[in-house]
Amino acid sequence: MTGWLVIAGLGPGADALVTPEVVTALAEATDLVGYLPYVRRVAARPGLTRHESDNRDELARARHALEMAMEGRRVAIVSSGDPGVFAMAAAVFEAVETGPMAWRGLDVRVLPGVTAMLAAAALAGAPLGHDFCAINLSDNLKPWSTVERRLRLAVEADFAIAIYNPRSAARPEGMSRALALLREACEPGRVLVFARAVSTPEEAVRVVALADAAAEMADMRTVVLVGSSATRVIAREGAPFVYTPRAAPA
Amino acid sequence: MTGWLVIAGLGPGADALVTPEVVTALAEATDLVGYLPYVRRVAARPGLTRHESDNRDELARARHALEMAMEGRRVAIVSSGDPGVFAMAAAVFEAVETGPMAWRGLDVRVLPGVTAMLAAAALAGAPLGHDFCAINLSDNLKPWSTVERRLRLAVEADFAIAIYNPRSAARPEGMSRALALLREACEPGRVLVFARAVSTPEEAVRVVALADAAAEMADMRTVVLVGSSATRVIAREGAPFVYTPRAAPA
Repeated sequence: MTGWLVIAGLGPGADALVTPEVVTALAEATDLVGYLPYVRRVAARPGLTRHESDNRDELARARHALEMAMEGRRVAIVSSGDPGVFAMAAAVFEAVETGPMAWRGLDVRVLPGVTAMLAAAALAGAPLGHDFCAINLSDNLKPWSTVERRLRLAVEADFAIAIYNPRSAARPEGMSRALALLREACEPGRVLVFARAVSTPEEAVRVVALADAAAEMADMRTVVLVGSSATRVIAREGAPFVYTPRAAPA
Repeated sequence: MTGWLVIAGLGPGADALVTPEVVTALAEATDLVGYLPYVRRVAARPGLTRHESDNRDELARARHALEMAMEGRRVAIVSSGDPGVFAMAAAVFEAVETGPMAWRGLDVRVLPGVTAMLAAAALAGAPLGHDFCAINLSDNLKPWSTVERRLRLAVEADFAIAIYNPRSAARPEGMSRALALLREACEPGRVLVFARAVSTPEEAVRVVALADAAAEMADMRTVVLVGSSATRVIAREGAPFVYTPRAAPA
């Protein structure tokens, strides 16, 4: 048997947002590797061994998956959203680069998915309809000063900003600090979208002005979209539409 | 019949990258609206009227779709990739905001998809594995000075950069100018990925150092990924893996 490793994106939550490419790979896999809640999204079946882990030590998880693929197993690492965006794909390639040369000959493929910011944006309207950036607020892997510098430059560039991992139990203060920085740099009416658990039964979306935003509106399952200076809110019955016009003024 | 309007993302090209949510909506639609090559990706069937257009006047196309939905038709606007990223969703909401108040009461939904940069990144490895931004290089809807300012700030922030619409027949010089700017701001070894027509039979990916990059490597079907200063290339037989490490140095 020739082994392979796919790093598969399960999308934000709903089965209707998982690509057929990922479904096919999961059906052919012998081993499933990933953070427990993501592994649990894939139905058990005979011939499929699940290797559940916590959300730490991604590099060890990647190495384990690569070792199994070298042994001829068909391994799927599952990530929420897209595996290339603040998820497992980068960890796998880091493990490949620092691992045995033989790992470079493996069949390793990344299977893209619908990442959280795109699902959140779709739910709100089209807040990422013009130039935008994505920033991981976790300072687990970078100093907070880097996060702050990037937020300031993103505002200066007038990007819409998708904030991933806005708040975790270990680092509850990041989102408060980010809001304080945004309040210095942006007008009080700047539009924010807090989108939680999009496409799941727990889905909740909240559109607020920066002046009314609070860090408590975000948790581990939330992505926060910060509009550019041009982002608009269309009032209507029910949730408003939020969008960023395609054209930027001169 | 109650009308609705969905703005559906067809992904980068392959059917295996179209979400089941989009497939279901297309099966229920009475009218299909979009740029001709995207409309042609959806199989003809009785009961489905196709409204093909060129790639200009997105606002007129959006208004036409909204009018049909108001008449009770089930309308799907199709975009390549994700409809919220440099595609039709923003045009629809612009049409809603500037149109009759009754349009705000319509059932309008955006169905997310796998956008070009995510498919391109997956093919190359994980070049967007750390903070990144997406910039539309077309100066159709914004002045070139804005494009330049954003590119400079993106390099200063050390984002990886996804460049959409790098080169069109009408504006062939944008990519040359962008490369000239990057050569001023970045080291010559900066990694670039030119990914063309990802997931289609015409798929081609090219990994080059900034010093060796040429505008001619991009066309209308290409997305260009510019690595951050930390982006790595793993040499191997065949195409190299490209990735941006999760951790940023202090």
